[in-house]
Amino acid sequence: MAWAELVFDLLGVFFFAVSGSLLAAQRQFDVVGSLLLGTLVGLGGGILRDVILDAGVPRAFDSPIYLVPPVVAAVVVYFFAHVVHRFHDVLITFDAAGMALFCITGTLVSLAAGMNPVASAILGLMTAVGGGVIRDVVANDVPQIFRARGLYAIPALLGAALTSLLASVGWLNLGTGAAIAALVFALRMVSLRYG
Amino acid sequence: MAWAELVFDLLGVFFFAVSGSLLAAQRQFDVVGSLLLGTLVGLGGGILRDVILDAGVPRAFDSPIYLVPPVVAAVVVYFFAHVVHRFHDVLITFDAAGMALFCITGTLVSLAAGMNPVASAILGLMTAVGGGVIRDVVANDVPQIFRARGLYAIPALLGAALTSLLASVGWLNLGTGAAIAALVFALRMVSLRYG
Amino acid sequence: MAWAELVFDLLGVFFFAVSGSLLAAQRQFDVVGSLLLGTLVGLGGGILRDVILDAGVPRAFDSPIYLVPPVVAAVVVYFFAHVVHRFHDVLITFDAAGMALFCITGTLVSLAAGMNPVASAILGLMTAVGGGVIRDVVANDVPQIFRARGLYAIPALLGAALTSLLASVGWLNLGTGAAIAALVFALRMVSLRYG
Repeated sequence: MAWAELVFDLLGVFFFAVSGSLLAAQRQFDVVGSLLLGTLVGLGGGILRDVILDAGVPRAFDSPIYLVPPVVAAVVVYFFAHVVHRFHDVLITFDAAGMALFCITGTLVSLAAGMNPVASAILGLMTAVGGGVIRDVVANDVPQIFRARGLYAIPALLGAALTSLLASVGWLNLGTGAAIAALVFALRMVSLRYG
Repeated sequence: MAWAELVFDLLGVFFFAVSGSLLAAQRQFDVVGSLLLGTLVGLGGGILRDVILDAGVPRAFDSPIYLVPPVVAAVVVYFFAHVVHRFHDVLITFDAAGMALFCITGTLVSLAAGMNPVASAILGLMTAVGGGVIRDVVANDVPQIFRARGLYAIPALLGAALTSLLASVGWLNLGTGAAIAALVFALRMVSLRYG
Repeated sequence: MAWAELVFDLLGVFFFAVSGSLLAAQRQFDVVGSLLLGTLVGLGGGILRDVILDAGVPRAFDSPIYLVPPVVAAVVVYFFAHVVHRFHDVLITFDAAGMALFCITGTLVSLAAGMNPVASAILGLMTAVGGGVIRDVVANDVPQIFRARGLYAIPALLGAALTSLLASVGWLNLGTGAAIAALVFALRMVSLRYG
């Protein structure tokens, strides 16, 4: 499942980078600021995880491909930001999508680094929410995770715990992984509507 | 003194976690936000220290027992927050108690990792104030340490330096450790009253 | 060029520390807060870089000489802050000077740690802007790099890329290094005037 994990991870970087670039657009940062904030948000959670795992240089610095999604995100936001009407809703949706993927990949990276299943789920949660916390702190907001409309940490922790559990018993594959991501995303979005 | 060090450290985590959960209650975060902010504040300083020491995975991730104090803190604050009248004074008191313990354990962990006495005292200071800085930054305040009423960094640095000195000459034991903690706490609290 | 690199690095620490202590003076922090914020800003970028490089304890903790520039900076600001009229302009100038030096030393440290030229330039950029981001986040401002008047990240990235390139082809020496620093500083300052 290695290539699928990479695809999930790069997609997660892209979604979070879009959320960062959108916030930059909303705050009227220029295009460089948009690229930088998107990069920070997209890569921040994974860098935090890799630094804590203490297993060499974070993969975002080792694999240049991790720089591609933030660049694409900045370009996309640059050209489409003016047609977006409800910035905050779009931002929250991309944030939820990134979270749904990162709680899986973050947990898998931690398991692969030899952490026990519980610690791996916690690091998966941290990967999933870290970029968003950095985004909100840098932009001088109280992080969404603390003042969440709807559920935020609960779906991410659930996704990380399910990933850890299924990986431990050997039931994690592309299908179950995608199902976990869909469940986390759905939980977050539904809770926003009825929260 | 290994078990005493663990007890000091877990108590320090608890005190800082209470300060984080109290701030969460004051800002009307929900119970999940309270648990998360308490955990971040309680474990943040030690994780920062362990990441800088570059000696493997931070102990908070290696030893599941470190997750207990933040949970207890969140529960305690959840049930008692409504009877607390002067949030900020209570928060500052718990913060001071956590600082008094962490300047000792942070220094000892750094010495045990092979740092020299001066660097160990500085890392002890960083452990003692790191969680509080994270708490205030995340909650969009200027950290107490910079705009302190009364003395803040001075007692913490004094405690760390005394710990480093006494440990180096072999005079650190449960009694002298407790005396250092009491001194640091007293200095902070007295300076608040007359500051 | 080892001693020149150390001099560049310590000067960079000093310039950033002045920017931190100036901000502290502007916000009316006391002298301890000024020393602490200056230290955090002066050493923050390099610590971040060293933590990511995962190559042992950050040099700021290994070499006590790194504590000297922040102390000097705090003393200088303490005695001269009252004669400074346009705090923000002076702060931005010192910030630019620190950035001009750190984009060089940050890149060189990363190359020496075995990173490839592209990753080294990116880490050089991060070293050059990290301290300033920390300063502004802690002081509750949106970081300059995101809402820059004039060019900010572009000169730093250019300086880091030039350093990486020249070091790779063996043309980096004291003269070319100083020229890069001058170019980065000039670009930043000129862009401020005409930005």
